[in-house]
Amino acid sequence: MDLFFDPEFTDSDPVLEKSESHHCIRVLRNKPGDPIQITDGKGNIWSGEINSFKNHRVKVEITAHQKQRRPKVERSLAVSVPKSSDRLEWIIEKGTELGMHSFYPLHSEFSERRKINPGRLLKKALSACKQSHNPYLPEINPINSFVDFISSTSSFQHKFICQQGANPEPLSILTGKVLFLVGPEGGFSTAEFSKAKEYGFGSLSLGKFILRTETAAIAALSLSFPQ
Amino acid sequence: MDLFFDPEFTDSDPVLEKSESHHCIRVLRNKPGDPIQITDGKGNIWSGEINSFKNHRVKVEITAHQKQRRPKVERSLAVSVPKSSDRLEWIIEKGTELGMHSFYPLHSEFSERRKINPGRLLKKALSACKQSHNPYLPEINPINSFVDFISSTSSFQHKFICQQGANPEPLSILTGKVLFLVGPEGGFSTAEFSKAKEYGFGSLSLGKFILRTETAAIAALSLSFPQ
Repeated sequence: MDLFFDPEFTDSDPVLEKSESHHCIRVLRNKPGDPIQITDGKGNIWSGEINSFKNHRVKVEITAHQKQRRPKVERSLAVSVPKSSDRLEWIIEKGTELGMHSFYPLHSEFSERRKINPGRLLKKALSACKQSHNPYLPEINPINSFVDFISSTSSFQHKFICQQGANPEPLSILTGKVLFLVGPEGGFSTAEFSKAKEYGFGSLSLGKFILRTETAAIAALSLSFPQ
Repeated sequence: MDLFFDPEFTDSDPVLEKSESHHCIRVLRNKPGDPIQITDGKGNIWSGEINSFKNHRVKVEITAHQKQRRPKVERSLAVSVPKSSDRLEWIIEKGTELGMHSFYPLHSEFSERRKINPGRLLKKALSACKQSHNPYLPEINPINSFVDFISSTSSFQHKFICQQGANPEPLSILTGKVLFLVGPEGGFSTAEFSKAKEYGFGSLSLGKFILRTETAAIAALSLSFPQ
């Protein structure tokens, strides 16, 4: 069944916002009586059926409500943004499917890009939430410099800098906030490595080969599913 | 340093094949005396320097040779091919970076595509080998039907069918041939599931959300790095 997204959807006002209503009725050609699911991106999923379509908005007859709990492990990515938008958007899409909590885009010494389009990334995350039925929309942060970001990571209990090396051991972190730091194609500079160590980052080896930025990001998330 | 690929390269005839020679000299503008690395995609990496460029081919002065051992665990993917070529090529690129041994493209009951371009996939694998410095070129097989393929999997010691479910436990397989079977967007049919079970496939849960084909494939490889 199709899942629609509306951050303002509530039990007391079960009316789907305009663009999702349009998509539901005009694009997917649903009709009153058809089943529907809605998430607010904050863990809630409502199931029901379409009651009516008035003033460009779908009114929903709710039959069930489910609140999915946040996992006890929150896995976030801080990634030096790749040059290609496609590869950046892949990280968002795959990260959302794999339950990423937050995304921090960075520019570092050897990264070639300093601008991103946060609106486009948010759209990607939204569409991945709907497609994968993940009811938690990841937080997409504005781009920040490596140095400013690294000094603001004290709220994370587990911090890893991803690098080439041995094959990875499976990570069994049971609770808390986990952050994976992934470098650009050219890697982090020696100064950046030292800075990360100074701020308490441990190393996470991701195997013997040189992984692209987006591959390292997705491998780190896959290695750390909450148990 | 740039890594070049030539399946016929040997110690006794250290001459790089034509198109790689062209790329090395004409595109990357290397000159005699410049350092160079070559792999044959079978685990060998030669290091040396460019000796000369004659008859469109680079002659190499070898200074070192290294043979990388195959890991004791061979991880292969059998994937019902996604509709989008991009997503299929992404599996090949990421799979190669993560050390995939072989790739078996399948058409199954709910898959929408029955043709692939094996030459293009091989090119993708090749370029990922060079980029990631993985000296083993994965084997790319011709497309096969689910039914024919499944009955030819007796040489694999560990067989998993990937599905939505619980969060994955890390896989610690120490030796042997491992196969991950990944379904299309619509999943495998009930008959296909039964068939896989009949042929000894166990289940590998990849979390609570619905993963796209390519995400499931990459997550399975990331979860099973040889220890």
